[in-house]
Amino acid sequence: MTQLFQSNRSTLADCMPELVATARGDLKATLALVNVNLVNVVSGEILPGMSIAIQGSRIAYVGKDITHAIDENTKVIDGKGKYAAPGLLDGHCHIESTQLTVSEFAKAVLPLGTTGGFFDAHEISNVMGLKGLRFMLEEARTTPLAAYMQVASCVPSTHPGLETTGAFIGPEEVAEALSWGPDMIGLGEVMNFPGVVYGDDRMIREIQATLRAGKYADGHFTWKSDDWRLPVYAASGVSGDHECVTKEDVIERIRLGMYAKMRQGSAWHDVAETIKAHTESGIDTRRMMLVTDDRSSESLLREGHMNFVVRHAIAQGVKPVTAFQMATINTAERFGVARDIGSITPGSCADIILLDGNLADVDVVLTIASGQVVAENGVMTTTWEGYNIPKEAFETVHIGRQLGELDFQIVAPIADGSLVAKAIEVVENHVDTRERKVKVKVENHHVNLDSSDDLCKMGVFERHGLNGGHALGILKGLGLNIPAAIAMTVAHDSHNLTVIGNDDELMAKAGNLAAEMQGGVVMVTNDEITSFPLPVGGLMSPEPFETVALQSEAISHALIRAGCTLNNAFMTLSLLALVVIPEIRLSDKGLVRISADGIDIVPLFDAIV
Amino acid sequence: MTQLFQSNRSTLADCMPELVATARGDLKATLALVNVNLVNVVSGEILPGMSIAIQGSRIAYVGKDITHAIDENTKVIDGKGKYAAPGLLDGHCHIESTQLTVSEFAKAVLPLGTTGGFFDAHEISNVMGLKGLRFMLEEARTTPLAAYMQVASCVPSTHPGLETTGAFIGPEEVAEALSWGPDMIGLGEVMNFPGVVYGDDRMIREIQATLRAGKYADGHFTWKSDDWRLPVYAASGVSGDHECVTKEDVIERIRLGMYAKMRQGSAWHDVAETIKAHTESGIDTRRMMLVTDDRSSESLLREGHMNFVVRHAIAQGVKPVTAFQMATINTAERFGVARDIGSITPGSCADIILLDGNLADVDVVLTIASGQVVAENGVMTTTWEGYNIPKEAFETVHIGRQLGELDFQIVAPIADGSLVAKAIEVVENHVDTRERKVKVKVENHHVNLDSSDDLCKMGVFERHGLNGGHALGILKGLGLNIPAAIAMTVAHDSHNLTVIGNDDELMAKAGNLAAEMQGGVVMVTNDEITSFPLPVGGLMSPEPFETVALQSEAISHALIRAGCTLNNAFMTLSLLALVVIPEIRLSDKGLVRISADGIDIVPLFDAIV
Repeated sequence: MTQLFQSNRSTLADCMPELVATARGDLKATLALVNVNLVNVVSGEILPGMSIAIQGSRIAYVGKDITHAIDENTKVIDGKGKYAAPGLLDGHCHIESTQLTVSEFAKAVLPLGTTGGFFDAHEISNVMGLKGLRFMLEEARTTPLAAYMQVASCVPSTHPGLETTGAFIGPEEVAEALSWGPDMIGLGEVMNFPGVVYGDDRMIREIQATLRAGKYADGHFTWKSDDWRLPVYAASGVSGDHECVTKEDVIERIRLGMYAKMRQGSAWHDVAETIKAHTESGIDTRRMMLVTDDRSSESLLREGHMNFVVRHAIAQGVKPVTAFQMATINTAERFGVARDIGSITPGSCADIILLDGNLADVDVVLTIASGQVVAENGVMTTTWEGYNIPKEAFETVHIGRQLGELDFQIVAPIADGSLVAKAIEVVENHVDTRERKVKVKVENHHVNLDSSDDLCKMGVFERHGLNGGHALGILKGLGLNIPAAIAMTVAHDSHNLTVIGNDDELMAKAGNLAAEMQGGVVMVTNDEITSFPLPVGGLMSPEPFETVALQSEAISHALIRAGCTLNNAFMTLSLLALVVIPEIRLSDKGLVRISADGIDIVPLFDAIV
Repeated sequence: MTQLFQSNRSTLADCMPELVATARGDLKATLALVNVNLVNVVSGEILPGMSIAIQGSRIAYVGKDITHAIDENTKVIDGKGKYAAPGLLDGHCHIESTQLTVSEFAKAVLPLGTTGGFFDAHEISNVMGLKGLRFMLEEARTTPLAAYMQVASCVPSTHPGLETTGAFIGPEEVAEALSWGPDMIGLGEVMNFPGVVYGDDRMIREIQATLRAGKYADGHFTWKSDDWRLPVYAASGVSGDHECVTKEDVIERIRLGMYAKMRQGSAWHDVAETIKAHTESGIDTRRMMLVTDDRSSESLLREGHMNFVVRHAIAQGVKPVTAFQMATINTAERFGVARDIGSITPGSCADIILLDGNLADVDVVLTIASGQVVAENGVMTTTWEGYNIPKEAFETVHIGRQLGELDFQIVAPIADGSLVAKAIEVVENHVDTRERKVKVKVENHHVNLDSSDDLCKMGVFERHGLNGGHALGILKGLGLNIPAAIAMTVAHDSHNLTVIGNDDELMAKAGNLAAEMQGGVVMVTNDEITSFPLPVGGLMSPEPFETVALQSEAISHALIRAGCTLNNAFMTLSLLALVVIPEIRLSDKGLVRISADGIDIVPLFDAIV
């Protein structure tokens, strides 16, 4: 019996006899790609006039002449001298950030040339724990993608005193998840890096469970590259990290034996700077990887996925074959799966893309995944039996009551006067926030924000049905210039119901609407309501990719009409509750300050003025 | 309880909490190396002013300042600006070729900077099967080496009709051996490459067993690099190969996703040619490895081990850090153990060498293995409890009778006259032989060789006590100019008793002496007897390294005195029974011809002249 993993992918051990028989010509190839310019990421060359014979899900033969391995039953594709490269791999990606289900994500990225990835289902795990990871893994296995999943390390991201998550993942859960199969590849980004450095028992034991399973732990270290504690983190066995924003970040991680992941997400554009570790400093590139981390469905539609990232890297002056290595073989080697994916070599899975024109354009015109042509000219050409997402994934928003104006009134410790408060300042195109001291007026024990200071309110309401708590804070830099409110159940990492706005009534309305539709995003003004339903865990839509992208775009446009012109505003706002990224955030437990000294709840008000 | 593998090496999972505590300074390092020029094989840089803190068997911290991690109980070594590189790894080595036990091999190579290797105990396995492999594995575990063993794939090298081995290894034996521990790293060189290409069931199932165990299959492909069947071999999952003699051999293997091992053995000097794949053709070097394959104890004493090979590679124009990569991180990555060995990075095993003078000189002055200083200035400074080799390993030569002159008389199919016979011609410094047609005289049904043609006799006697068979052949090119004979139980691969000479009486005498001492090498002339006892499996000596090297050298000198001036004559002669290397060999079953068409027994005589 053939052991299958990831859709119809056979293990090399199982199908090897047929591969060898095909390679010598006794069995004939199921699919053949002839006359291509081979992008050989192993040797680092472009080889003209090459042909590839495929048997089932894997490559049987690569050479100048494959006539012995094909007959009239072989489907033959004439590459006409186009480039053939290994399918692109995303070395760090949260599928939930696209708001797509795994199935729709696959349909979105396969035509763009992405045939595999390493996915940290961190968001659904914060809502549903291992049950969420499990259904995403099972859904991934139905797609043609070489999809490897990681078990989230930080649910909650730090500890329950700082935020309320829908689930808890600890060392036992990590060990269990990593036993589910070879496509459970390792531990998701260990964001609680101070915990690792200072010996937090849960973090240490989660990494130990990962190493004992022979799998890979990914990192997330945001202190500076020359911080003396980066080598401490590296000693833990965490061996990859995507939190690189400078070339020094890349260099220091590689020097310590880590894989440095260079990120081009929708809202963080790190490659132009980080790639200088290669283009300026000449560091060995084998441990450099290109990744997306978080890309919105809009970005997929308007820019692309890994094809966009590789093209962008080349545009920074990277030799095309080197850039392809950073999105293929380097990534596969990082996760110990280079014998299965990441190159066009005999024995590897047949994940191949054809590219038109100049290689530097990364113009994908045909995608073969797992030995099947799945997309041509940007369009999916195959379907597969869909996956039925379990019912409980559609029942995750539990507010338990109607919100009202009073829920958004910030109560002050004085009756009237002025107070200095800590506002969360949004920084465009950066995941970091700034702590800004602002002077606010108090009238009758309630804070009245002055819209001329570009201040508005933010409320986070626990939505997992656990304690019903909430907290309020002040936001600066959003740019709203009409009465408006936006509510969302996508709010990293605990994904509580987050409402942002400058009008208490509209805020209550938006929050209630989002809860009623079992999650999603609702933008409300006095004139219009824009909804983007995300009923799957309150994070994802079951709708097709294009629909989701348009709905997402509608929210962006609604924000712009209300005056918020931040680039990727929605993604930026959805991170305002993320209590592990400096400097200051709001969770359902209150205002949280993140610094090199630690992460703590801090009071909203500083002093009476 | 700490799980140990390979002597006192802890797994990263087990000792990680202590490493992290040491790295942050709460626990103090056991050993520290300060002020070194770090050869960083991950980033491809030389970094001045670096220091390394070690806890137990692993590296806890690497940085410019490690004062926080040391105290008065830490042993601190001042590197005084010398280079510190990862301990060298031999990516393909048969320890038996040194005629040393594993313990003595370790003592020989540790001072030379080799701290680990991937060892194919192919020779002992041909004599004793898995029992032989098992005791060498257990002996290896007592040494400070990071020693990984492979299970021999080809015992016998082809099939029992071509030679008689002392044991049989098939798919079940492979699966069993690979279950012995993480230091059983994979399948030894699959020399029966035609078998793989043409679907031999045993070969296919051995490779499948290896892939199913998640381990690595090494190759041995001697057809030309442009043979259309190399991709067939690659499709089997064989992913490394040391049979590279041209730069094209290297390039074609890497293009197919294999690791190309560039060999500098005692008798085969391939690096100067194969390294051109990098120095001339610019192929990506990450899958290039430097290996020794077979080096004699004399070569270890006179030239060195991997230090010699790396120095030689640099002398061909390879950048020093690149050459070090080929003997450290590339090798570790090939075998999936780069998180344990192959670089000086936090979490890795503390296998570190200090080098004096120019890096290109590879002048090793101090060796740290598994966190302990084991050698300084070329001398071992530590000892460890020895290993008791099991008694049955000393009882492996079973001839069962005295040999006499008659055993060496070649019987002809005619009574008197001349015949054309196939002689085996020795080619200096090459593992290949040539088939040479020679005219021989027959008198009274017996062949009389004419010494003026530089012909002599060769006899192979089954010595495993299985069938008592033997065969005779004719050898050309040895250069003997006095009556002489050499007998040896080192005769790849089946290691039957092989006797070579130009005098039947001396041949019988040499053969009997070799059998009486339970194996080894005996050189006999009318004036002297030179003995090199190898009672461990008839392959290895229990004596110390220097003694063995001198005994080995004594055989070389005796051969020279008898007129045989071939470079590494003994190693060349010991391969004359190796029935998988072209063109023609002699086994206990008869004359064997090896060609691209296959491997077959052929008659000694061609025609009556």
